[in-house]
Amino acid sequence: MRIKQVRVTPIAFRDAPLLNASGIHEPYALRSIIEVESDNGYIGLGESYGDVPVLSVLQAMQESLVGLDPFDLNGLRARVVKTVATLKPGTAGAELAPGSHPSKQVANAYSAFEVAFLDLQARSLGMPLVDLLGGAVRDRVPFSAYLFLKYAEHVGSPYKPDRWGEGISPEQIVAQARTMIEENGFKSIKLKAGTLLGPEHEVACIKALRQAFPEAPLRIDPNGNWSVETSLRMAELMGDDLEYYEDPCPGLEGMAEVHKRTGIPLATNMVVTDFDEFRRSVALNSVQIVLADHHYWGGLRDTQILARMCDTFGLGVSMHSNSHLGISLMAMTHVAAAVPNLSYACDTHYPWQEPDEEVIKGGKLPIVDGCVALTRAPGLGVELDYDQLAKLNDQYLTCGIRSRNDVTQMQKYDPSWKALKPRF
Amino acid sequence: MRIKQVRVTPIAFRDAPLLNASGIHEPYALRSIIEVESDNGYIGLGESYGDVPVLSVLQAMQESLVGLDPFDLNGLRARVVKTVATLKPGTAGAELAPGSHPSKQVANAYSAFEVAFLDLQARSLGMPLVDLLGGAVRDRVPFSAYLFLKYAEHVGSPYKPDRWGEGISPEQIVAQARTMIEENGFKSIKLKAGTLLGPEHEVACIKALRQAFPEAPLRIDPNGNWSVETSLRMAELMGDDLEYYEDPCPGLEGMAEVHKRTGIPLATNMVVTDFDEFRRSVALNSVQIVLADHHYWGGLRDTQILARMCDTFGLGVSMHSNSHLGISLMAMTHVAAAVPNLSYACDTHYPWQEPDEEVIKGGKLPIVDGCVALTRAPGLGVELDYDQLAKLNDQYLTCGIRSRNDVTQMQKYDPSWKALKPRF
Repeated sequence: MRIKQVRVTPIAFRDAPLLNASGIHEPYALRSIIEVESDNGYIGLGESYGDVPVLSVLQAMQESLVGLDPFDLNGLRARVVKTVATLKPGTAGAELAPGSHPSKQVANAYSAFEVAFLDLQARSLGMPLVDLLGGAVRDRVPFSAYLFLKYAEHVGSPYKPDRWGEGISPEQIVAQARTMIEENGFKSIKLKAGTLLGPEHEVACIKALRQAFPEAPLRIDPNGNWSVETSLRMAELMGDDLEYYEDPCPGLEGMAEVHKRTGIPLATNMVVTDFDEFRRSVALNSVQIVLADHHYWGGLRDTQILARMCDTFGLGVSMHSNSHLGISLMAMTHVAAAVPNLSYACDTHYPWQEPDEEVIKGGKLPIVDGCVALTRAPGLGVELDYDQLAKLNDQYLTCGIRSRNDVTQMQKYDPSWKALKPRF
Repeated sequence: MRIKQVRVTPIAFRDAPLLNASGIHEPYALRSIIEVESDNGYIGLGESYGDVPVLSVLQAMQESLVGLDPFDLNGLRARVVKTVATLKPGTAGAELAPGSHPSKQVANAYSAFEVAFLDLQARSLGMPLVDLLGGAVRDRVPFSAYLFLKYAEHVGSPYKPDRWGEGISPEQIVAQARTMIEENGFKSIKLKAGTLLGPEHEVACIKALRQAFPEAPLRIDPNGNWSVETSLRMAELMGDDLEYYEDPCPGLEGMAEVHKRTGIPLATNMVVTDFDEFRRSVALNSVQIVLADHHYWGGLRDTQILARMCDTFGLGVSMHSNSHLGISLMAMTHVAAAVPNLSYACDTHYPWQEPDEEVIKGGKLPIVDGCVALTRAPGLGVELDYDQLAKLNDQYLTCGIRSRNDVTQMQKYDPSWKALKPRF
């Protein structure tokens, strides 16, 4: 079996005005949809970042993969290394999408194609992808309710307001959680923090969530936007309420200090984003839970390796998410199903995605009792809807966004807004 | 595809009177040959230890694997864990075969079947096993000349003397190296040390090898049989001659001290034999090269994980060997071919094996220019010779050995011989 053709299609889909440490989400999120077609008629699917620094590498890779055996993952890696070496350094990626950093170009591009290669392998063998990862240890993968402080609508009203409404007050955040849990059955709750509303306000939201959902594991994620001192102060206010404390402050050293002084388990998708950082984190005891993300860790197999390393070094494992569609959700689900030591419900932005903008056949995948179920369908178990792909590609072409920038988007609301870290 | 039948056949083959830290090899080495047969007519092969502690687990597993999907490696692991839990603790395994330690029962049994499962997967797909490991980064895997101090024949003359003759003096060791290199083209040389002949004698052998083969990377392996002081003293005498110093003294702490005081890279198959020891070694900087062995590290996939961990923590990777036949040699070759950071020629006892006692069709595999070549044949690329299997199983049944014991064997030469570590 050889690869006959590779297609990388950038898409854009509506994204809610969600606040975060950098500023606020733009009206459209960008992704790349990857199709790897074999000479015997199978198509493997992948989904990755759509920002220019990543997209340009993915597109530059397309021709170089023709003729490769889709089982030859080492060959894929070699070709990615070679292609990246010939490209001029890209511009800096989005701050909150670690995978879009130029330093991660090889891991990103490898990840994107690795999923498509594995999907192609599994489809050609008529088996679910998870079977190539050693088989499922669970047939349903738990995800968490991912709450955001948000405005009712985007600046300039690029389209009609989303159904979630404003999410600023603790009461509004509790209402957001109720809707999300009613619709999806989530058991765990995560609040994105580090926003302009400030740590005290966000801690008040956590307190309101604790009261409204006394049994739910709670997490807060300031995205490294609080100083060590602020992180410690907020830990004192809400430490007992937290399942884990995600990236309160920047840097491996800062995180190590917060853990040492509070004893609260710290999770990260910001300070341990590759194997080199993993090694440094182990030396410092910076984090206790690694939020894996196959989009920048090197695909599904490397995510399994990361999970085994976490097991070896006594760390917990869960999963990080950026705005994504169903192909990524199923890739996350297949690998999570094959990770025995997955110890926490995974993050996903999926509930924020509008139902009319899924790129897979049949529309959005169901989340039931907080879980995404595996099926025995071949590969990832999802098929591309080419009408939707064309529609979302048109939207990419017209939306005007080429690289995610939550800072400049916030400046449309507040011209004095600056990138600062930590801000509080 | 489901597993229809599993067969575990113990075999014995002639083994030369090779000296080591425990004493001396017995006249026969024991192995298990594993066959995993699917309901669609494929047979996956494996080879593992044949000592009672391992064999009893492998045999206890046979029935439990019927009906399992050979892609379900997580299911295999769960069944091994369950079976081992129901067995009473085995007797201690052979000191120099870390994989036979009772504490490693799960990893051993999993390893043995994992190779057979992967071989079965690959055969059913009509592809070489290496393709399931991500594809070959090299099509020929380098091995080293593995020299032993030895007697001309076994005590009691159980069969006629081997062709290698006595290997005691430095001149005899150089002659042994010449023969082995002439026949196999090896580029690197390893001397097993830690024997009753003492460190000074063994260092004299290294000096003679250095003179006779000025360009060859040299290694010495006292199997942890020298004290830290002796290790340091010998390092001073031969440190500059060594590519690496393998297990000079016992324990992670001792190894760390020898490295700290000499700066010589230390390799091991004794103090880092599982992921837990890997973590402790990293904290102490005990070793710089891990000699992987898929027979006790958890099969081929876990060997890949180990190699990636070595890459992450800046350690080199090569491979350890016990006495083995062609199935193990090809399993080592397939996984070594898929490990990008394999940084040294692998160990193998294979040249010591008698040509009339190979268990695979076509007899012994060729080693050319020091390398074993991969082919594109399905799976491991070797087939079982059932006449040879029956012959070697008969030999197992009559040879009287059930668990390797190099200490009691040496007592046949010297009744006062005792297990001691370190001896010097």
